[in-house]
Amino acid sequence: MRWWGWGDPNHLSALDEHILGHLRATVGVSDRPRPPVALAAVRLAPCRVHRRALDALALILPAGGVRTDHLARVLHAAGKGYPDLLRLRAGEPQLSPDAVLYPSSEDQLRSILALCERESIAVVPFGGGTSVVGGLTPLSGEHAAVAALDLTGLGQITRIDRQSLMITAQAGMRAVELERQLAPEGLTLGHFPQSFEYVSLGGCAATRSAGQASTGYGPFEDMVLGLGMITPTGNLNLAGYPASAAGPDLRELILGSEGTLGVICELELRVRHAPQQQLYEAVLFEDFPAGCQALRELAQEHTAPTVLRLSDLQETRLSMVLAGGGALKSALTGIYLGARGHRDGALAILGFAGSEVQVDVQRKRVLELVRRHGALALGGKPGRAWARQRFSGPYLRDDLLTHGVMVETFETATKWSNLARAHRNISESVRLALGHPQSPVLVLCHVSHVYETGASLYFTVITRQREGAELEQWQTLKQAAAEAMIDSGATITHHHAVGTDHARWMGDEIGQRGVDTLRALKVELDPAGIMNPGKLLP
Amino acid sequence: MRWWGWGDPNHLSALDEHILGHLRATVGVSDRPRPPVALAAVRLAPCRVHRRALDALALILPAGGVRTDHLARVLHAAGKGYPDLLRLRAGEPQLSPDAVLYPSSEDQLRSILALCERESIAVVPFGGGTSVVGGLTPLSGEHAAVAALDLTGLGQITRIDRQSLMITAQAGMRAVELERQLAPEGLTLGHFPQSFEYVSLGGCAATRSAGQASTGYGPFEDMVLGLGMITPTGNLNLAGYPASAAGPDLRELILGSEGTLGVICELELRVRHAPQQQLYEAVLFEDFPAGCQALRELAQEHTAPTVLRLSDLQETRLSMVLAGGGALKSALTGIYLGARGHRDGALAILGFAGSEVQVDVQRKRVLELVRRHGALALGGKPGRAWARQRFSGPYLRDDLLTHGVMVETFETATKWSNLARAHRNISESVRLALGHPQSPVLVLCHVSHVYETGASLYFTVITRQREGAELEQWQTLKQAAAEAMIDSGATITHHHAVGTDHARWMGDEIGQRGVDTLRALKVELDPAGIMNPGKLLP
Repeated sequence: MRWWGWGDPNHLSALDEHILGHLRATVGVSDRPRPPVALAAVRLAPCRVHRRALDALALILPAGGVRTDHLARVLHAAGKGYPDLLRLRAGEPQLSPDAVLYPSSEDQLRSILALCERESIAVVPFGGGTSVVGGLTPLSGEHAAVAALDLTGLGQITRIDRQSLMITAQAGMRAVELERQLAPEGLTLGHFPQSFEYVSLGGCAATRSAGQASTGYGPFEDMVLGLGMITPTGNLNLAGYPASAAGPDLRELILGSEGTLGVICELELRVRHAPQQQLYEAVLFEDFPAGCQALRELAQEHTAPTVLRLSDLQETRLSMVLAGGGALKSALTGIYLGARGHRDGALAILGFAGSEVQVDVQRKRVLELVRRHGALALGGKPGRAWARQRFSGPYLRDDLLTHGVMVETFETATKWSNLARAHRNISESVRLALGHPQSPVLVLCHVSHVYETGASLYFTVITRQREGAELEQWQTLKQAAAEAMIDSGATITHHHAVGTDHARWMGDEIGQRGVDTLRALKVELDPAGIMNPGKLLP
Repeated sequence: MRWWGWGDPNHLSALDEHILGHLRATVGVSDRPRPPVALAAVRLAPCRVHRRALDALALILPAGGVRTDHLARVLHAAGKGYPDLLRLRAGEPQLSPDAVLYPSSEDQLRSILALCERESIAVVPFGGGTSVVGGLTPLSGEHAAVAALDLTGLGQITRIDRQSLMITAQAGMRAVELERQLAPEGLTLGHFPQSFEYVSLGGCAATRSAGQASTGYGPFEDMVLGLGMITPTGNLNLAGYPASAAGPDLRELILGSEGTLGVICELELRVRHAPQQQLYEAVLFEDFPAGCQALRELAQEHTAPTVLRLSDLQETRLSMVLAGGGALKSALTGIYLGARGHRDGALAILGFAGSEVQVDVQRKRVLELVRRHGALALGGKPGRAWARQRFSGPYLRDDLLTHGVMVETFETATKWSNLARAHRNISESVRLALGHPQSPVLVLCHVSHVYETGASLYFTVITRQREGAELEQWQTLKQAAAEAMIDSGATITHHHAVGTDHARWMGDEIGQRGVDTLRALKVELDPAGIMNPGKLLP
């Protein structure tokens, strides 16, 4: 992973002159490129962990298991949120871990937590490193130092139960590696967030992740049957029963705990038979409300396809530009202009997965329903184009940052009866808060997860960076977005989690009694407060 | 509700001479009937609540809202578990509430909890009164007295959101009354436990109830989107978002809390369009393992019907006897004897619900799959017979008690790969623990809820009561069953909850760290410990 941005260091820029030209004409771009500084120029504070403690940690861990070198500390200094990238690219991370620890067994994990508690070292569990909400910021809280706990060494599948369609895996395993190992078994987990190529299973559990196919496979929390968490006060091991009425479901307290209660070390997960066929296609609704109405019916009739995404007018327009002279544009301008006499619309991607018969039956039912809502079928090309690009959005963000363009995303969910209002209020609030005559703001939105009772809304905001005040600009955006969500009766996050960025709105989300309850839970499991301080709770 | 047993006082006995004769020949029955004592003969301890506190409660509540009369105290002295009935019928309830309180608003609820905390009065929330695990036993814990909090007065639907298929209802509302009010709207909740005619919504949430149609509609916890709970330390109000990643899911802490943390007062629930058609039919598998295999495939291919139950050989045999000369027996003896040359088998009930087209399509797929597993279709008659009798089991239990026959049920769930072993171990352990040469034991079992990863097992044990040692006999059964479940890797309860009966095995279920975590949450929300003491936690 690039220390200053997303993904594979060898990835080539996808930002061609066509896209850049469009951005220059709409939001504006910087006159000169603003690349990241060199790695050596990144400024870190001196390591604060005592030699004595480092030696003790080295005795617990295998050779190379304690690192305090520049690269390790930079790579664990932040997640991949917009402010993280701003700071890293400038060579000034907000903070950095004093040490990075690489355990490879649960015993080592237990010993690390005991030692860190004794030595007053805060611990930040670190999986794929993809948090976009400040969940990995190495805050030391009231402690003398802070260590990142890199879980890469806990990366195995330990059991496959084909009959029950359950597997047991260690928390540091990457989702992409899990799928690679399940493929020869004819199995799949089915969890494909945009960050799929990097996320770890423990990270997905700790943040209640949802993937692009979660309409079909369910959000990550629905896949988790059993959990093992090591806390500073002992192990919480919850066996994976298919269902139980034995009291409150403690798994649901570990899911979403964001490393603040302990380290998730093992997961029992539901898997499924890998689909024989996967098929993506696109349809175009006349407008966003018509598309939402169709999505609602699909969800409530239990016929929603595995992947179901609906872009609003603004996002559909930009998709056409990004597609260049490609399939989507010709489809849109050709079919839609011809049929309707205007070129706007709301693009939907439908992804089907299953046996050939299942896909065929479901596809017919879905297309029939969306046609009843006025949708035009655009065929497979735009769908396949989406599928090819489905994990590459974060690369584009890096390229845009180089050209002085801010790209930030945030997301929410609300019930169907409230969706149109939330979409309007949030879009409008963000536009008002950020925009001024010299700097237009693009606010794009799509629905990406549907439920019987409601849906998610995923916003992308694109505007010219306010040079020299980039962080203040971002804070303005976050505040406007969060307050608009709360005012609109929508959750402050559907699948990005809380981290540092959303912590101050937790009282709005679950009430003061809810916040106090979570605090009491933390005091019980982590009385010294070493686990990921400053996250989740205000 | 009968004070000494189940249901409508005017219900007529269903125990005909045919069934009694069969029981006489198998497990044996008492020589003379053992009816319950008269109401006036039920012995209660004197009310321990101070006059001063009663007067203060009367000021909080509407007229008639504080009762200390004999009938009210007897009616709230217990749930409907086997030991509850033993004691009530003998006129010696284990305990009785000192007073019964009938709030009709949340403000009254808050005031009651504050007063009870001040006056050291324990509080047992009381919904439909149907707990079969001692969840309603009026234990006072360390307090001076105990009051039952009857929630009948909080029984309204307060909001219907047709677009989101969500309703808001008060916790005291009965499930049967909710369905009655939803029917004209064309909506249904779809929660039909055997206790459907009495259970309250709050009770279903507090105990993680599952219904006979939960394979189609999901267990009760899946229907709950939002929750309001009044605790002695304030309100926990959780809004009903379709999904959220804003930290641990506190709803899952309230679900299953069994009144030990506070009083659930309001629920936001997912509803569905009422099905146009409902259709029940029966099929017969050659044996239980063949049936389990088919159920597993139905669950894992997502084609399971709304109701799906599979009886083992023992339960199938008794079903034939209970059906007398009826449809099931003639179907079984006719079709099955003719086709297979022997009369044993594993009976399955399939219930379909949906539009005519949906039912038709699904029925074809299901019948095709079960036929591949060797099932014979028995047609609609045995299915409809089951549907007619689906809520009447508890009446039969009362009748059998009168004849000195013990009937106890318990249930569990485990993963598919473990189901056969758990079925065998639990059946055998119970038979060994209870049986002796003079007193045979019938152990019947069915699967009633299926999941992708596993299924429930619901056991019914029928044997002659050990007269004079009925409670000891029951304790022997409970212990044997629970220990066999734990040894078999199965949960101690799938949908009956914990109450007093299963509390001592919670450490086996969630570990000592899990128990301590629940205790810490209780201390946070109910520091004085007035809420339903002695339940859930050992």
